[in-house]
Amino acid sequence: MPALQWTSDFLMWLFAFDDEFCDEGPVAASPDATLLIITKLQRIVEVPWAAPTDDNYSAALHELRLRLDDLTTPVQTARWSASFRAYLQGQIWMAANGAQGRIPTLSDHLAVRLDSSGVKIFSTLSEIIHGYDLPAADYERHDIRGFVEVFASIIGWSNDLVSYHKERERSQEGYGNIVDLIAYERGCTLEEAVSETAMMHTRAMALYLRLRDQILRDAGPELRRWITDCDSWIRADYDWSLTTNRYVNPENPADLPAGSAASPFQEREADLPLPIASIAWWWTLLKD
Amino acid sequence: MPALQWTSDFLMWLFAFDDEFCDEGPVAASPDATLLIITKLQRIVEVPWAAPTDDNYSAALHELRLRLDDLTTPVQTARWSASFRAYLQGQIWMAANGAQGRIPTLSDHLAVRLDSSGVKIFSTLSEIIHGYDLPAADYERHDIRGFVEVFASIIGWSNDLVSYHKERERSQEGYGNIVDLIAYERGCTLEEAVSETAMMHTRAMALYLRLRDQILRDAGPELRRWITDCDSWIRADYDWSLTTNRYVNPENPADLPAGSAASPFQEREADLPLPIASIAWWWTLLKD
Repeated sequence: MPALQWTSDFLMWLFAFDDEFCDEGPVAASPDATLLIITKLQRIVEVPWAAPTDDNYSAALHELRLRLDDLTTPVQTARWSASFRAYLQGQIWMAANGAQGRIPTLSDHLAVRLDSSGVKIFSTLSEIIHGYDLPAADYERHDIRGFVEVFASIIGWSNDLVSYHKERERSQEGYGNIVDLIAYERGCTLEEAVSETAMMHTRAMALYLRLRDQILRDAGPELRRWITDCDSWIRADYDWSLTTNRYVNPENPADLPAGSAASPFQEREADLPLPIASIAWWWTLLKD
Repeated sequence: MPALQWTSDFLMWLFAFDDEFCDEGPVAASPDATLLIITKLQRIVEVPWAAPTDDNYSAALHELRLRLDDLTTPVQTARWSASFRAYLQGQIWMAANGAQGRIPTLSDHLAVRLDSSGVKIFSTLSEIIHGYDLPAADYERHDIRGFVEVFASIIGWSNDLVSYHKERERSQEGYGNIVDLIAYERGCTLEEAVSETAMMHTRAMALYLRLRDQILRDAGPELRRWITDCDSWIRADYDWSLTTNRYVNPENPADLPAGSAASPFQEREADLPLPIASIAWWWTLLKD
């Protein structure tokens, strides 16, 4: 229960930080300001007992990081810390694109977004919440690293759809959301870009389910637990996203779906690899 | 033997890259150019089979990374990859300080330099060369993480001394070398800053030896091997540094020591913690 409370507190920190420093506000528009804050935060994540905590976010993260040590093994902390550092580092690239007026290719964006979305961090939390250790020999397997990328993209891409309304209201102009990036790169309408994003999401989900079954076939108990915890994160993320005022926005309602499709795989090509250079390798992980 | 050849090839890549992109040349002066190159390189490190390799350094790193998979376990690759990513990320901070004319505090510089010097990468290579697996529960221990910071600083700080001559000849003006940073922060002469750096190095070495003995007291065979491999890296780095033309520079000789001091610990205060906020915590790891 303390680990679940910790996770909830950490996610509050993460969403608040992401809005205030990464999606909105003056720091998000300045790669140099982003660099300075994330350099400070990453030292707190690594060595909390030595880092300066001279602003609210640093002080809160410092407290969270110290509490974490009482709840985890050092290996669990290290996994959380590495994915969190990668999230922080990814923010510089996002800020620099905005500041330079640079529109990245969808392929490059999706590769950086694997880290900068923060979703990979979720994949390190179930060990902490449930108190089990996934062996390093499993955690670092190439197919598991690929599986984490698919997991992160499913949640990240569906978040781009549900948060589009909020971002257009509150964020800087820019191409941080793949809907805008697809519309730009394909020269298509916003509506077509939404459909394209939904199609990408369907294909990633179809791949996820096949990879998942393939990994479970000869998974040990910890890996089995961890994979099924990833399943739960995806389901929980949908349920939360479609009901939270963060995205529903009662004062100026977003046009969100009322629920899930009964059968998400009506698209006949759901099993085809996406022709996007940075992620097409995911499909090579399938053994049959 | 193939792993030793790989290590040698990788170090050639690392030193060439460090000179051309991090210490010297136009990219080193531009945080944005640094960001773009390191974003590309870190994807090659993580997922080599999906990344673009459209310049010499990317193509060479791609080849090195693919060879690595045949020599290592995924856990070894992941440790190398994480330390290498941290090295790459640290370059942005170094470049940004130069571009903004910002002189960091010594404390902040030393914290970033732990990653950006590249020395932490060395600590992941002995497993690869000798083919053994340090258990994750050892590798992620807080005292081992601290030990790696001391290790990285000993080699990094002595490198700042031996490479000073080369950097003044070839690099941008700046504060990438702690000798200049100490002279600036303390308002002292270059000669006094060199003495201060040597004193810091002596104290770090005195701590290293005590921490090393403390860890060895109840270390398993892999941890014992790994710790003594760290010893060898330090000795080898001295031997190489004082004889390589890179630093000796026969055409315009550097004023390097002819050998090691017979007794490095004549300084009476060798056991005192350094009063530098970001690293003073190292001494709290001592149990007696």
